[in-house]
Amino acid sequence: MLKLYHHPFSPESRFVRLALGEYGTPFETQTEYPWARRHDFLMMNPAGTLPVLKENDGPAVCGATVIMEYLDETRGYAIPNNRLLPDHPEARAETRRLVSWFLQKFLSEVIGYIVQERIYKQEMPDSQGGGQPDSSILRVARANMLNHMRYIGYLAATRKWLAGDRLTFADLAAASLLSCADYLGEVPWSEDENVKSWYARMKSRPSFRPILTDKMLGMPAAKTYADLDF
Amino acid sequence: MLKLYHHPFSPESRFVRLALGEYGTPFETQTEYPWARRHDFLMMNPAGTLPVLKENDGPAVCGATVIMEYLDETRGYAIPNNRLLPDHPEARAETRRLVSWFLQKFLSEVIGYIVQERIYKQEMPDSQGGGQPDSSILRVARANMLNHMRYIGYLAATRKWLAGDRLTFADLAAASLLSCADYLGEVPWSEDENVKSWYARMKSRPSFRPILTDKMLGMPAAKTYADLDF
Repeated sequence: MLKLYHHPFSPESRFVRLALGEYGTPFETQTEYPWARRHDFLMMNPAGTLPVLKENDGPAVCGATVIMEYLDETRGYAIPNNRLLPDHPEARAETRRLVSWFLQKFLSEVIGYIVQERIYKQEMPDSQGGGQPDSSILRVARANMLNHMRYIGYLAATRKWLAGDRLTFADLAAASLLSCADYLGEVPWSEDENVKSWYARMKSRPSFRPILTDKMLGMPAAKTYADLDF
Repeated sequence: MLKLYHHPFSPESRFVRLALGEYGTPFETQTEYPWARRHDFLMMNPAGTLPVLKENDGPAVCGATVIMEYLDETRGYAIPNNRLLPDHPEARAETRRLVSWFLQKFLSEVIGYIVQERIYKQEMPDSQGGGQPDSSILRVARANMLNHMRYIGYLAATRKWLAGDRLTFADLAAASLLSCADYLGEVPWSEDENVKSWYARMKSRPSFRPILTDKMLGMPAAKTYADLDF
């Protein structure tokens, strides 16, 4: 059995949940609060970051892209029609480039700020950095969001899926990040029709369902978060 | 033919040069100054980051870990005795975890600051952020260096190579980062005998030679930079 240490609103954790959903692989979850720096969790992943995947008594597989490669190697080969990495090394490189783009650049310039300020800081004790969102940080994130929407829109307009003709990890990465912001009503869908219609396709996939039922205490989802017709 | 767009003191570029050296793959290089945001370079890699690898007329392969996977897929399979990723998915996950640790955490907490302040800022025009190193930033980097030395020392003390019994990409990642700091005399070798003896083994590999001849105008290498006996 697989066990995923995650946080419901950690974008990188959602990425792994989507991938496991696409593969149809059952898994358990345990919610982890990285800011608590729990001793046993740090023993598994000294970086103290999410997500971490454990398979039975195997070693911890740490970090979203490391888990992505692990899942492709241990699950992807077995389901060629549903594989989330293309076959050709050049196409694989393009998929991985976009996964890095989303999980590093889009995360650090936009979504990381939004999740930190509007979700994590609400859950953290004051002593660990909790408190009110910093509106100047959110302003930067919202401005950067527009550039990233344009880039996703460009990809969605020129390709069937973000990395090419087939659904790949790149789509899961972009959708997992957007979904966290969407819960908070922070995605300006009207900015780009191509992003919206691509995301509507993502949202209607069965792998997305568990994510659409995620809830945060005291912070209800934006009205259209779970609507397939938003 | 492979062509690598790099900067001689970009740690992630050195990582790729070491990997190509280990594979014995010939390649051309072109020095790129990411802060110049050259138009044709941004067309290859919209993220504007180094390194970028081009194979003949193929698409650009962007980013150190994406290039690592590409090289393993296109070169590594062919040389099983010299492969830089282990065979077993769990061992591969451990190698990738450490590569991420070094290329993300060690880079962002230590080496990135040192290279930015002491190398890039000396080469940048003032209008693009050049100037004197910020000593408060360097102080933070040097303090963080000690924790990272301890972690590398722990790995070197308990394993033959950093990720296990064989040389892997993890060793190349750690060594490429340390080599940039070492050029500037910024590695406290006396802190950990295990790190030092592991690095001495790395430094004596033929793949390391080109890196030991790198020079920066107006900033000679620290006295022991190219010494195998340091």
